[in-house]
Amino acid sequence: MDLATLETPVPVVDLAVVEANLERMQDYCDRHGLALRPHIKTHKIPALALRQVELGARGITCQKLGEAEVMAAAGLDDILISYPLVGQNKAARLAPLAGRARMRVAVDNPLALRSAAEAAALSGAEIGVRVEFDSGARRTGVTSAEAALELARAARATPGLRFDGLMTYPVSAASAVFLEAVLPRLRAEGLEPAILSGGGTPDAFRTHELAPVNELRVGTYIYNDRMMVAAGHAGWADCALHLHVTVISRPTADRGIVDAGTKSFAADLMPQGAALGHGYFPDYPEVRLERLSEEHGMLDLSACARKPELGERLRVVPNHVCPVSNLHDRIAFMRGGEFLGFQDVAARGRTL
Amino acid sequence: MDLATLETPVPVVDLAVVEANLERMQDYCDRHGLALRPHIKTHKIPALALRQVELGARGITCQKLGEAEVMAAAGLDDILISYPLVGQNKAARLAPLAGRARMRVAVDNPLALRSAAEAAALSGAEIGVRVEFDSGARRTGVTSAEAALELARAARATPGLRFDGLMTYPVSAASAVFLEAVLPRLRAEGLEPAILSGGGTPDAFRTHELAPVNELRVGTYIYNDRMMVAAGHAGWADCALHLHVTVISRPTADRGIVDAGTKSFAADLMPQGAALGHGYFPDYPEVRLERLSEEHGMLDLSACARKPELGERLRVVPNHVCPVSNLHDRIAFMRGGEFLGFQDVAARGRTL
Repeated sequence: MDLATLETPVPVVDLAVVEANLERMQDYCDRHGLALRPHIKTHKIPALALRQVELGARGITCQKLGEAEVMAAAGLDDILISYPLVGQNKAARLAPLAGRARMRVAVDNPLALRSAAEAAALSGAEIGVRVEFDSGARRTGVTSAEAALELARAARATPGLRFDGLMTYPVSAASAVFLEAVLPRLRAEGLEPAILSGGGTPDAFRTHELAPVNELRVGTYIYNDRMMVAAGHAGWADCALHLHVTVISRPTADRGIVDAGTKSFAADLMPQGAALGHGYFPDYPEVRLERLSEEHGMLDLSACARKPELGERLRVVPNHVCPVSNLHDRIAFMRGGEFLGFQDVAARGRTL
Repeated sequence: MDLATLETPVPVVDLAVVEANLERMQDYCDRHGLALRPHIKTHKIPALALRQVELGARGITCQKLGEAEVMAAAGLDDILISYPLVGQNKAARLAPLAGRARMRVAVDNPLALRSAAEAAALSGAEIGVRVEFDSGARRTGVTSAEAALELARAARATPGLRFDGLMTYPVSAASAVFLEAVLPRLRAEGLEPAILSGGGTPDAFRTHELAPVNELRVGTYIYNDRMMVAAGHAGWADCALHLHVTVISRPTADRGIVDAGTKSFAADLMPQGAALGHGYFPDYPEVRLERLSEEHGMLDLSACARKPELGERLRVVPNHVCPVSNLHDRIAFMRGGEFLGFQDVAARGRTL
């Protein structure tokens, strides 16, 4: 089969670009003494996670138990769930995972710690606990050194749990400020954190300048996207995934419609806002993907000297690539323009 | 199993509310002489489509071939694909559908007409062609009476095709203006359109005042959502789907985090913009779901006298319910608070 005959819309991943992206990040981590623990949320494909480990990653990061279950079944054996697991349902699912892989979980509150303790008791296996702190993202994570200390003490005191260290997202100058405040207090109580973990692709290559972490969790770097180009992390040639779409309507001279909307792209906007639209067209940089409905993408062609024609196939770099993986049951792999086959996105849709 | 023990995040649909919503719309259509052709994009579940037909719908509407394939396999036998199908891949998939169901397709350009013609030739079955026109949404649809006439003539002249009528979305006062211009010209050529089809839930109950259509395509009315409440189409009690979520973190007095983000809600904003947030909490109307990342929903609790606690389960009416169906492999059905079972969202993820 030829790439140009694949039915659209279809996400197409260039494995040569993937390989270069993986090697560049592994090399950066090796040079700066960082353990790389890639976040699989971007690709959700066991074969790619195994390749990350083969190249030197110390383990992987998942956000949900369902993702960890897919990855553990594929042989990944060191898994961090960087997300507070709250409730008995979660403990009941974490337990069998702890029996087959080295499991680590993030906590920022006593209920998440209790889930980990229940899972450890059910499985008989030790579970590592990382205390998540907030570096300014105002998401999960404790906001005081005192709260971090309390959770670290509780982890040490709980049978079946091991205090594994500290974790934050994204790593920033604020991470260093928090660590400076909390580390002496932890050490004073004999709670030396083995792992100080930071994350985030946009500033990944500055991690060593930002904060004294010894582990890096990054996801998007494997494919990159328009946001990563805007952040200066990558160039267009480093974007491994393109959505291939078809112009299915050209109602006016300046308007085109492609066969992909929020069901294929997700609606994530650039940080600069809606004016930048929903994707970048490397073969038509002047095209603006101005609006999306579920199955339609509306192109403003008014700035184009040469305009895409009805029936023409176009390549699009999405604003944010991670939701694209989640929206497609399978993607196409290619290398150097040659179609290699379809790959199931095995861990897509794992909301639980 | 009890609803309160279902693992979160989980979409829960109240079938009593569904039934009332379906009956209300069917009754409206019956009173005004409109054929109801519900759009299955909102629920993507064959059992609900069959119920819509049982209550009086004349057939269904799908946006993609993959949705139509799921519905035809379940026994739905009159299917409109309200979307331009462009290319040989699409014709090759439309053909077998035309062999098992009465198929109708929307066209707004010659390539979409050619796909229908190829499918009719391959299958030997007649395919109905509806010419889509633009009523101001600036999406697909011809923008001139002349273009509509040309496509209607071509449909009549093409073996295997039948000119089925005209179609627009959403129905509005502009639809009436277009119809007034085009209908005399069509009739003058003997091209009487059997069907004049309008769509859209927000103004559905005003269809008879807006334009002289004789068919209504609506999807969202089966579940309703925050946008339909804002549009005045529904009240909160008419919202059949709630996403049940859990507060997994309470980092500060005024911030809570729930276990659902864009992977569970989609990122669709209210027409008024981002300030209204991403959902409505019927049990905590003052909660503002201010930001979403993929797996996190950030709650601003500053306006709440009573604040949701860590570990508490909350119900959320999403801004836009259709993407919620697409994001979940299965949903929970309940009636009067009693859990009935899980239902596969069989036509989710059908981007092709």
